[in-house]
Parts: sequence; structure tokens; C-alpha cells
Amino acid sequence: MTEFELIEKLCAGLPGNTSVVVGPGDDCAVLDLGLPDRFILFKTDAVVESVHFTADAPPEKVGHKALGRCLSDIAAMAGTPTAALVTIGLPKQFDPERLKAIYTGMSALAKRYNVAIAGGETTLNPDRVVISIALIGWVQKNRCVLRSGAKPGDAIFVTGELGGSIAGKHLEFEPRLAEAHWLTEHFDVHAMIDLSDGLAGDLRHVLKTSQVGAELLAEAIPISRAARERARATTEELLPPVDSAGPKSALLAALTDGEDFELLFTVPSGDAVRLLDSWKLRFPKLRLSCIGKITATEGFTIRDKHGTRPLTVHGYVHFE
Amino acid sequence: MTEFELIEKLCAGLPGNTSVVVGPGDDCAVLDLGLPDRFILFKTDAVVESVHFTADAPPEKVGHKALGRCLSDIAAMAGTPTAALVTIGLPKQFDPERLKAIYTGMSALAKRYNVAIAGGETTLNPDRVVISIALIGWVQKNRCVLRSGAKPGDAIFVTGELGGSIAGKHLEFEPRLAEAHWLTEHFDVHAMIDLSDGLAGDLRHVLKTSQVGAELLAEAIPISRAARERARATTEELLPPVDSAGPKSALLAALTDGEDFELLFTVPSGDAVRLLDSWKLRFPKLRLSCIGKITATEGFTIRDKHGTRPLTVHGYVHFE
Repeated sequence: MTEFELIEKLCAGLPGNTSVVVGPGDDCAVLDLGLPDRFILFKTDAVVESVHFTADAPPEKVGHKALGRCLSDIAAMAGTPTAALVTIGLPKQFDPERLKAIYTGMSALAKRYNVAIAGGETTLNPDRVVISIALIGWVQKNRCVLRSGAKPGDAIFVTGELGGSIAGKHLEFEPRLAEAHWLTEHFDVHAMIDLSDGLAGDLRHVLKTSQVGAELLAEAIPISRAARERARATTEELLPPVDSAGPKSALLAALTDGEDFELLFTVPSGDAVRLLDSWKLRFPKLRLSCIGKITATEGFTIRDKHGTRPLTVHGYVHFE
Repeated sequence: MTEFELIEKLCAGLPGNTSVVVGPGDDCAVLDLGLPDRFILFKTDAVVESVHFTADAPPEKVGHKALGRCLSDIAAMAGTPTAALVTIGLPKQFDPERLKAIYTGMSALAKRYNVAIAGGETTLNPDRVVISIALIGWVQKNRCVLRSGAKPGDAIFVTGELGGSIAGKHLEFEPRLAEAHWLTEHFDVHAMIDLSDGLAGDLRHVLKTSQVGAELLAEAIPISRAARERARATTEELLPPVDSAGPKSALLAALTDGEDFELLFTVPSGDAVRLLDSWKLRFPKLRLSCIGKITATEGFTIRDKHGTRPLTVHGYVHFE
């Protein structure tokens, strides 16, 4: 049994109740607590030292990242964050100044989006820092966007530029809350997800729950400067590769690096041009790219000048 | 700066917003999300391997404890739990059967109280198991009981028997949800808290936020059989003491051991007899003890046959 199979099996047996509109498997849980026009969004996310950040990462940025990841999930459902609780596991003898700095980074981000930090706890975790954030938000019932709504013919969009976030962006990204609100206010967004596992992996979640396929255009994938620089540096052996698979091309990095915390969403293809035009006026500093289309037949491919080939979670299958 | 001072300082600077009715410092955060007659309760709590449970503890009981601690906090505010999210940090190569068993224990408890497990995540925590639970619940606005409402003259009650929970109860306790509901339905409960840090420490939280004092009666403290047995065994050196302070008397164990997960609450003293009588009819299997009274003058004392002496967080000050 793989890890994914195990988690799927565990999730299948979890108790539900009538409050749950959407349970495990989307960016947030969606609850109906009796408000006439709103659903409550509920999310937790944890960052672990040496897994999600290094011991020497600036603590303000660690705090920013811990909360930002949850805000990004609220954004992916077009929601508004309300209140967070913060659980921090710390070794004994942890420097109080470092703890304060973690809170400083988290509080600055919380204030920017009017999120209350309503409590939490500090507990002993002997070996490393662990920060688990729980977040409550809300969304208009008719604006809540799930992963499962993609339809054949939809155009697929991503915000920003992808890949190479380990060079810094993974600690400094801005959750796309304003963008998601604007999108659902002006367009019929069929499906949305935030990019945490990497474009290839996250789009696959959308395809699976929507029971559709996708075809991407390699040329349209917005590759970040960091991904290009890292690709060059690892090829020239100036930098070690991120993982044991060896050097990645910049395109493969954009497809699989993860922790971009951008939005991926689909809209009817007829709206694509209007969306690109009005986006430029509203968010002139943030790139928006139409990267491909949803297909009726399941399967996930990428097309470049050499032809079309299948895309796996771990990247694309080479011709050779 | 002590740990408590640091946390107090950190909490003072946290961002709030208009949704927060009660922020850090009570059993749960209390939020007003726009429901006319209900507040939303929001709680997180983490258990860490070798801190809150041993590596060889039965995994079903570990799951029970992780969720049960949060349910106990909801009980302390007379609330009803609705939905939980579960974050589990695990070493690589963690036995899938053990993970399943953790969920089995958690799910059984959740089902008993109609709590949905609406999602969560599994993340890598290389050295040990960490389980962080986030819980949403609700409470009628006019039934929400805080720590801060104790009044001079109130009688102080505790449910169950205290001390020695390390012998087993800390993994098997039942959250006092039904009891708390019944109490607030039939009595004017002024203040309530669940006993996690130990009677002496937790009552001190009530006294501090209520700006009152208390006088306990040593003879009235309900000492558990486990506390008595451990006191005997450690005195006779059959068991090592729980902490470096050395063997504890059974009374001191009941005052300071912690993890009893019973309720401590105060009601006007005029209601004390009626409460004890009706409790016996409603909950015949669960002991209820009146252990002392709230005083107008701050200070925290315990009276026994030798007289009255001050009670500290770590126990009482001996005469000798």
C-alpha cells in the first residue's frame, strides 16, 4: 500500500456529520454552520524545521510562511480568512527572540488581511520547531470554488511564475486572496487550487476530482527567473540539484518544484480573452498565463514543438 | 523573562478583529461569525510523543487522547463540538497499521459525540509522532462559560477524582460534554475550566482572570485511587517519582499531577446543595465534590486539620 492509498483509505473511514459540505480532499474543509449565505472554511497546515524551512531561515519569514500557506488555501476557494490559532512545538532552551520573530512575521501577514490570531499554544517538541496553523474563514455560498468543477473545453490559467521557489519565494510569497475574490466576482471560475505540490501534481488533483483530462502548452508555462537560474547552475554543477533525480530543466522545475503558492484555475474558454484583458488592468504587476485546456478524455499531456507527450506527477515523460 | 511572561507578552501583541469575542487565555477562542444566537468555539491542541504519550502507548488511545483534549476544552465552555481537522507529523517508515490505529481511536471518540473529522494532513516529522487537532464547535450565546466569571462566595466544584492520571486515565478519559451541558442548562455556572495542568494550576487561571481568591478544603479534594496507590508506591520506593521533586503525597498529586480532564466550576453557594442532589440523580456514576469557596481577597489557600496555608502552582507550602 502506498502512502496515497493509505491516506485515501483513512479518509474514507472518517466520521462525518450534517455540517460538512466538503470534507477531506479539497484546499479547505467547507462547513455549513447555519449562516444563510455563507459557508465556513476550515484549514490546518503545518511546517516542520528541516522539512519546510531550514534551521537558519529568518524566523520572521518562517512565521510568514506558516500562516501564508493556510491563507493560500483559503484563497483557492475564493474565501476570506477570519481567525487563526497557532500551535508551536519548540525544543527546550529555544531562543525567545527567535520565537518573538516568528510571531512578528506571522502577525504582520495576519494584519495585512485582517486575520485575528485568537490563541493557540506552545508545546515541547524536543528536536525541532513545528508550527501548525488552524484557520477559519468564510465564503459566499454561491462563490465557493472547488477542485472538482473543471469542465471539458475550459481554459486553464495560472497566476505568477513557477518553479525555483526554494531560492526564496517559498518564504516570501503573497497569498492570492484579492485575486481570487476578483476572479469569482467577475468570472465563472469552474475549479481552483493553490500550487503547493507543483503544477503537475496539483493540476492532477483537479483532473482527478473533476474526472477530466488536460493538455498543456509547454511554451505557455510561466517559468520563473529563479527556475531558469537554478537550471543553468545545476547543469553547470554550480549548485547541487534539489533532489536525487538530478538537474531539472527550467520547464520541469516550473512543472514540479512546488511551493509556488500561485493560483491555478479554469474558466470557460470563451471568457479567456476577456479575462486576460481585464486582469492586466486590475493586476498589472502579476502575470496571468493561459497554459492549456481541459479535455473530456482523461489523460494529462504537454505539447511542445516536438509533439505531445504524457505528463506524470514527477514531470513529463521524455521522448528518448 | 520566564516562559509565562514571554507568552503573555507575545499574546498581548497579537492582531485581533471584530469577530473575536474571547481571544487567547481561555479554554477556547470564542468567535462571533454572524449567527444570531450562537458563538463559534475554536480550539487547537497538540500531543507530542515522549511528552504527552510514550512511544509504546496503544495508538488507539493516543488518537483518543489527542481529540479528547480538545473536546474537554469545548466542554469547559459548555459548547458542542462540530468538526475537527487532524494534522499528524510522522517519521519516515512509520508503520501504517499504527497510523490506522491512531485514526481508529480518534474516530471512535468523534462518532460518540457526532464530531466530523473533515480533513487534515500528514506531514514528515523525522524524530517523533506529533498530533495537532483543530476543532470547531458552538455554544448558545447565553450559555458560554468563561474562566473569568468566578464571584466571591461561589462554591467551587470538581467532577471525578484527581491525581495519578499517568497510571492510565490520561489516555482514556471521557470529555465532560454532557455534564457541562446539563450544568449550564440547570445552574448559573459562573466560571468553568477543564483540569489539564492540575487543580492548583488551573484554579489559579480562574482566580487570576476573575480577580478573586480561593480557599480549598483539603479533606474535600477527591483523590483518585491511582494517586493514592502511586503515593504509597513512591514512598516505599516501588515506583520512581513522576518528577524531580520526589515522592508526592496523594493530596499533592490530586492538586498538581494534571491531565485529569475533569471540570472545575463555580456556582453561587446558595445553589450548592440543590446541585449536589440533582447531580446524583442525573450522573450517579460520576462523583461531584464541593472543594472550597471563592473569596473576595486575592490569595489561594488550603485548609486542613492543622490550619490554613498558601497553595502555590507547584503544590502547597509545608508548615515545616
